[in-house]
Amino acid sequence: MLLGNMKTISKTDLEQMEKQARTNLVNSLSGIQPANLIASKSLAGLSNVAIFNSVMHIGANPALMGFILRPISVQRDTYQNIVYTGYFSINSVDENFYKKAHQTSARYEVSEFEACGLSEWYSDSFPVPYVEESKLKIGLKLESIIPIPLNDTLLIIGSVQEIIIDENHIAKDSSILHHNMNNVGVVGLDVYHSTNKIAQLSYAKPGKMPEEIN
Amino acid sequence: MLLGNMKTISKTDLEQMEKQARTNLVNSLSGIQPANLIASKSLAGLSNVAIFNSVMHIGANPALMGFILRPISVQRDTYQNIVYTGYFSINSVDENFYKKAHQTSARYEVSEFEACGLSEWYSDSFPVPYVEESKLKIGLKLESIIPIPLNDTLLIIGSVQEIIIDENHIAKDSSILHHNMNNVGVVGLDVYHSTNKIAQLSYAKPGKMPEEIN
Repeated sequence: MLLGNMKTISKTDLEQMEKQARTNLVNSLSGIQPANLIASKSLAGLSNVAIFNSVMHIGANPALMGFILRPISVQRDTYQNIVYTGYFSINSVDENFYKKAHQTSARYEVSEFEACGLSEWYSDSFPVPYVEESKLKIGLKLESIIPIPLNDTLLIIGSVQEIIIDENHIAKDSSILHHNMNNVGVVGLDVYHSTNKIAQLSYAKPGKMPEEIN
Repeated sequence: MLLGNMKTISKTDLEQMEKQARTNLVNSLSGIQPANLIASKSLAGLSNVAIFNSVMHIGANPALMGFILRPISVQRDTYQNIVYTGYFSINSVDENFYKKAHQTSARYEVSEFEACGLSEWYSDSFPVPYVEESKLKIGLKLESIIPIPLNDTLLIIGSVQEIIIDENHIAKDSSILHHNMNNVGVVGLDVYHSTNKIAQLSYAKPGKMPEEIN
């Protein structure tokens, strides 16, 4: 099988790589990740928004979502705001404004909303801003901060308080039609991708290969 | 902004939804996730492979990857194998065999490799199988099992021991060209997507919008 230009990169090879090259390689190993903007607000009222590629599903009932965060890094505003206020929002990123979303990763002293040309939007019942441009807005309450001692990162988990979306972007089976919204994915930190639905597959059962159901 | 058919789904709405609809909705909130096959082997020598949509980057140096697992569920073979042997592999899924990969989520009593038409492949130096069909194969050593008490899931973290890939699928900056391999993403548990690169964006700095660098 290993024909062509197959190569093995060992642990030692990784350790000896130039730092940026290793970061690019290792960050991109897992494949396509979702791009999401996480918005928060300080107790003093300053809004913050930053792009993350690590938002994940934790559980459906209760509805829990999480993301990985480095506390001592460019995202420390996000961390402090979430810890102090107990709330944050997760907002989808689509092709129309993915460059503005990427720009939120710059180190700003002021609100990234204004600096990056994004707009704050508030629902009637949620204390922190959403990104107006995002077609899917999710309001979350902080539930747990789980330390990952291996490299001093944190898994932040929130429970879903409300979801704001156009009904037309929800399928009959209630799953969200991200491709209809032109939401983007990202490989590593900076290679943005569009996505196209191939097929929805039937629930897998022994003895019968899955069928395309949509 | 909230024109058209904008709707708010509250926490109470979520709790009152029919179970499968809620699962479909909440599983798909985060957006496009990578599809990966995780392979392992029992102490008795039985191979196991299962599809996961939760593989994530944890850190670049040391190179760490993780995934979310329910210990008491269809993936318990994966869990027991990893705990007992200390090793597992993460393997990419592309359009050529994504249906076989999806089929690994069925409840088999035998090895999913044979049952689903996938082939085992071994490197010279790694104790558990890789998926031969996968264009990117990553061997990992278990480093940490972090409980998420909120819903009894686990975050399993491994350190990268070796990466096996065709050199042609690595960009000049060392990031991996998943779209060149036709690797797929998944929304929720069953809606598979192809991806297309839009652009690689420059490192974000204040005062200058990102440029397309590739």
